[in-house]
Amino acid sequence: MASVDVPVALLGYGTVGAAVNRLLVENGDEIERATGHRLRVTRALVRDPAKERDFPAADGVLTTDVRSILEDDSVGVVAEVMGGVEPTGGYVLDLLRAGKPVVSANKQLLARRSADLFAAASNAGVQLRFEASVCAAIPVIKVLRESLVVTNVHRVLGIVNGTTNFILTRMEQGAAYGEALAEAQRLGYAEADPTDDVSGADAAAKMAILATVAFGSRVELGEVAYEGIEGVTPHHIAAARELETVVRLVGSATLVDGAVDVRVGPAFVDGHHPLAAVEGAFNAVMLQGDAIREITLEGPGAGGIETASAVVADMVSVLGTTGTGFLQNDACWRSLERLPPGELPTPFYVHIQVADRPGVLAQVAECFAEQGVSVARLAQHLVNGSASLDLVTHEAAVGRVDAALDAAAQLPEVRSRPEAVRVIAERGF
Amino acid sequence: MASVDVPVALLGYGTVGAAVNRLLVENGDEIERATGHRLRVTRALVRDPAKERDFPAADGVLTTDVRSILEDDSVGVVAEVMGGVEPTGGYVLDLLRAGKPVVSANKQLLARRSADLFAAASNAGVQLRFEASVCAAIPVIKVLRESLVVTNVHRVLGIVNGTTNFILTRMEQGAAYGEALAEAQRLGYAEADPTDDVSGADAAAKMAILATVAFGSRVELGEVAYEGIEGVTPHHIAAARELETVVRLVGSATLVDGAVDVRVGPAFVDGHHPLAAVEGAFNAVMLQGDAIREITLEGPGAGGIETASAVVADMVSVLGTTGTGFLQNDACWRSLERLPPGELPTPFYVHIQVADRPGVLAQVAECFAEQGVSVARLAQHLVNGSASLDLVTHEAAVGRVDAALDAAAQLPEVRSRPEAVRVIAERGF
Repeated sequence: MASVDVPVALLGYGTVGAAVNRLLVENGDEIERATGHRLRVTRALVRDPAKERDFPAADGVLTTDVRSILEDDSVGVVAEVMGGVEPTGGYVLDLLRAGKPVVSANKQLLARRSADLFAAASNAGVQLRFEASVCAAIPVIKVLRESLVVTNVHRVLGIVNGTTNFILTRMEQGAAYGEALAEAQRLGYAEADPTDDVSGADAAAKMAILATVAFGSRVELGEVAYEGIEGVTPHHIAAARELETVVRLVGSATLVDGAVDVRVGPAFVDGHHPLAAVEGAFNAVMLQGDAIREITLEGPGAGGIETASAVVADMVSVLGTTGTGFLQNDACWRSLERLPPGELPTPFYVHIQVADRPGVLAQVAECFAEQGVSVARLAQHLVNGSASLDLVTHEAAVGRVDAALDAAAQLPEVRSRPEAVRVIAERGF
Repeated sequence: MASVDVPVALLGYGTVGAAVNRLLVENGDEIERATGHRLRVTRALVRDPAKERDFPAADGVLTTDVRSILEDDSVGVVAEVMGGVEPTGGYVLDLLRAGKPVVSANKQLLARRSADLFAAASNAGVQLRFEASVCAAIPVIKVLRESLVVTNVHRVLGIVNGTTNFILTRMEQGAAYGEALAEAQRLGYAEADPTDDVSGADAAAKMAILATVAFGSRVELGEVAYEGIEGVTPHHIAAARELETVVRLVGSATLVDGAVDVRVGPAFVDGHHPLAAVEGAFNAVMLQGDAIREITLEGPGAGGIETASAVVADMVSVLGTTGTGFLQNDACWRSLERLPPGELPTPFYVHIQVADRPGVLAQVAECFAEQGVSVARLAQHLVNGSASLDLVTHEAAVGRVDAALDAAAQLPEVRSRPEAVRVIAERGF
């Protein structure tokens, strides 16, 4: 097949945009071998064309006017790498309506506006792809949509934020939270204002996207319950180690009897679980389904060139499937109900400070028994007249565990509100 | 897009073939949503149509005559799930020449005949896909070819045989080799004759395919140097543990300065390396490249339904890319030279039994120094007048380490031929 030159436009020419241009220039032969096309950046929307850039665009490519892209009929595919929800969302909508396929690296945009965006794409008969919006170079969207077509994925577990995983890994090695955060900032893994990462908000946006694709039912960002790592203490790290687990910030999307639960929070992950082996700023996503048991994908979840690599792969996939009817549609095709917040079944680790008096252990155990929560393991540690109980429950509904903790908190011997952390234990083999 | 019925033919209707039919029947809606097509098995080649089967084919589907598939113009795609190199290879060649796209789950066929098969596919302008030929449900071929188009993969490390990984994991838990093998046989992870798995031959075929796709240069099965796990002893397991590593059967395909090295053998894998976390009968493949650093895919590497899931994904991908020029070709496009066998650079663990006499350690160290092999760590253990030296080298060419061992073996104080095991330590972050 003769090579066809495909003009490409970029929205944004920052770190990722420049890296996309570099990959297209330096790997033109590879792309041509795979697709029969040569991709060339002919337009890139920026605010300040005079700014110095890593891999400068060719003369005349930078523009401050989105209309020069919208109205350019030669543009075969557009990569949105500018970030933000507005004006970005409006630009992408206009481009899709104008019949231009778009690939986006923007998790906030996808997590907040995907219904509108996919409706526009579908009406215009063009594709919208978004691999780079979740976990950078890890091809989890492609694998979910193209490799696992017949496997009924019912669970997604992910370490989808590298900043918090780096901090937790350093805490395991003995660093205090503040030290580990400062180190992450020094190394460029965390922003000056790390709130979005450490609060779990960033992970929540990615889990909304992954749940939507995995279950074919739209999950809105606002629905994802999240908790960050600010409350993780050296006590948690030590307690996790004693149980042969490690503390990780885990996103989970679960389909139980046709109802969906999506959440993000710290969890104790069994040392033999694939997610326990994910160290430093890496990300990993485990997909559990009928025909595959489980597949885990691990890799760098951030970085300019890593993100650009996924953007280019999406552009190549758009060219490779145009006109075939393959995945030209929204991943959503049904509307599933939500699992009521208290009903997700999962094992828990529970820590309770109590007075060291005879019978306390039995009273606490009774609180769990009354809620039908079965205790798998229990250890009592004595320190200077007070004691702590550390226990792990069998799988139980979140709400029942909370009720047991409420009851235990009322006992006169219990010194402070007991706390519970989810445990990730199960494996597919 | 209106749904189009696509008749599908199977070569073979054993465990995998029946599972393919079941997935197509039970997930017809999912496939139609993804592709706009309904896939229906209309022909399946078998030896004995009367045999009882798991998920029986519809009446009239089973046939003993391959011509009924070859000459059926309605067949849109054929899945080869019968195994074997002949007559299978001849059938697949004829089908491709007749203009029928083929997907194959057959690693022996792909590792031995891919040049002919791809030439036929290319001449006829049809696709040949083979995801299921390597690591069952783990989508490593799709990720290599479609997601990592612009990343110049330079290394593939894989645990690509579940039988041996199960045995090694059980040996870590204290089982002897024979016990672990018997258990694998009882659980169906190993054949009655386990030679193909435990010798490394099965892994070698998979590494030949992975290297071919990763580097775009054909690697023949006969070129892959392999060693199995028959020689792994409790001493190795213990020595690995002392070094905070685990013993794994690792396949590696490495591109060094434009030359290729592909091999399979036992290795000590650093406890923090993703491959060290792969337990039981699971497989994992790590891909290292310029733009991605490294991506690791883990999952079940065998099983009827897992393999069938990959076969169906390939059929879906064929339909989704037909006529676009995307990946319609052989993954090979260049012919790279081979790295001479002794030149692969890697760290080694070395074990030497010596007499406990002053100066032995210095003499052994001198053997390594003379070959320019740098020693990273060395420990001497004394037992009843003899001693053992356990050392780990820095990265060194295989040939130089062998030469150092030859020299050490000549020392009068050295009691037996020293042995070396590769160490997998490096990470991408």
